Amino acid sequence: MGYRLYYWTGLQGRGEFVRLGLEDAGAAYTDVARVEGDDAMEAFLSGEHEGALPFAPPFLVSGRLVIAQVANILQYLGPRHALVPESESARLYAHQLQLTIADLVAEVHDTHHPVSTAKYYEDQTDEAAKRAKDFRETRIPKFLSYFEKAVERGGGKHPLRSHSYVDLSLFQVMEGLSYAFPKAMKRQNLPLLRDLARRVADRPNVAAYLASDRRVAFNTNGIFRHYPELDG
Amino acid sequence: MGYRLYYWTGLQGRGEFVRLGLEDAGAAYTDVARVEGDDAMEAFLSGEHEGALPFAPPFLVSGRLVIAQVANILQYLGPRHALVPESESARLYAHQLQLTIADLVAEVHDTHHPVSTAKYYEDQTDEAAKRAKDFRETRIPKFLSYFEKAVERGGGKHPLRSHSYVDLSLFQVMEGLSYAFPKAMKRQNLPLLRDLARRVADRPNVAAYLASDRRVAFNTNGIFRHYPELDG
Repeated sequence: MGYRLYYWTGLQGRGEFVRLGLEDAGAAYTDVARVEGDDAMEAFLSGEHEGALPFAPPFLVSGRLVIAQVANILQYLGPRHALVPESESARLYAHQLQLTIADLVAEVHDTHHPVSTAKYYEDQTDEAAKRAKDFRETRIPKFLSYFEKAVERGGGKHPLRSHSYVDLSLFQVMEGLSYAFPKAMKRQNLPLLRDLARRVADRPNVAAYLASDRRVAFNTNGIFRHYPELDG
Repeated sequence: MGYRLYYWTGLQGRGEFVRLGLEDAGAAYTDVARVEGDDAMEAFLSGEHEGALPFAPPFLVSGRLVIAQVANILQYLGPRHALVPESESARLYAHQLQLTIADLVAEVHDTHHPVSTAKYYEDQTDEAAKRAKDFRETRIPKFLSYFEKAVERGGGKHPLRSHSYVDLSLFQVMEGLSYAFPKAMKRQNLPLLRDLARRVADRPNVAAYLASDRRVAFNTNGIFRHYPELDG
């Protein structure tokens, strides 16, 4: 019967990090809202179901388990689908890297929503311009040079010396930032991350997914948004 | 020999969530920077040590393991010190709740640093006023009513039906928000969370810690900062 993934339709958003894990693993899953509509999430978010109460999508239902928060979901899937090495130290490190990616993703979101997630981007453009400038000039270099160094320490191919869900998420980060901030990203010197992203895109299951209509295109409803005025 | 915790001196910050776990457990640990100075963290952050590369403090050294990210550290400590229930479902849920607390803490930080973490609060007061207003009016109610509901679902005493590191972190959230936003917090109807916070404060090891000089007072260098103008 497979997993049931619950996330908003019409955008990649945070759900995409989970989708990439499921797709790369060839795991059977239903992207529930795309079949039943966004309302299908409501029973979980309002607490009508047994078990864990999610704060927000995405969440994954696996048998009786309800698992929310992207990094928590990937940590759960990792050992079940050979998406993380065996050792405790590698698993702790993989999760730490994934949580650092989550921090980066939250900062990406705040470039277009620096004042309020409840308001439109168009209602906070002045503040967004300031936040995005700082993000381009200090945060992109800080985060990506960190991940570049992590890949270097892992031997140059993967931060964890072999394939893991962290590779998939770093691919998505590179894709998303290159869509949202193409000019700023051209200025970054990240040979190992760019090579990693290419190798992930060439993995057979990932390539098939990216070519399918299951991969929603980047757009200005997601986390990674291209507003030219925010790219300097 | 015990754990070695690395975090900035002079503030509670994110390190405090780890300290509360170690103190409640009665675990032997050294708060390294308080003994050796903040420079002691540099060798880890610059990658001179073997193992995981932290992005930022806090990180915990346990034998050969280097573990960064608060929620990752607490997930590691939980089973070792009876700070989380046994079942897989409870552990996944505890971690999800902790990650949601981490999201809230990041939003608290952004009330005083909505534009740039590299600049002073005084350089972004206009934007901070807007962000803090939204935080008080929409985000505090959303997050805290969620956690209130989680405690209710857990039977009224704990979100996980028994004591866990999540209780300790919810105590810290209630303390920190009450320090930073006393007026806004007085308006929240949170009987279960307030009762939980009192019970945590009365736990013998926690009470002893809070009365000791190991507990740094809240101040305007930390995550939770009291700027009266941000409290409406």
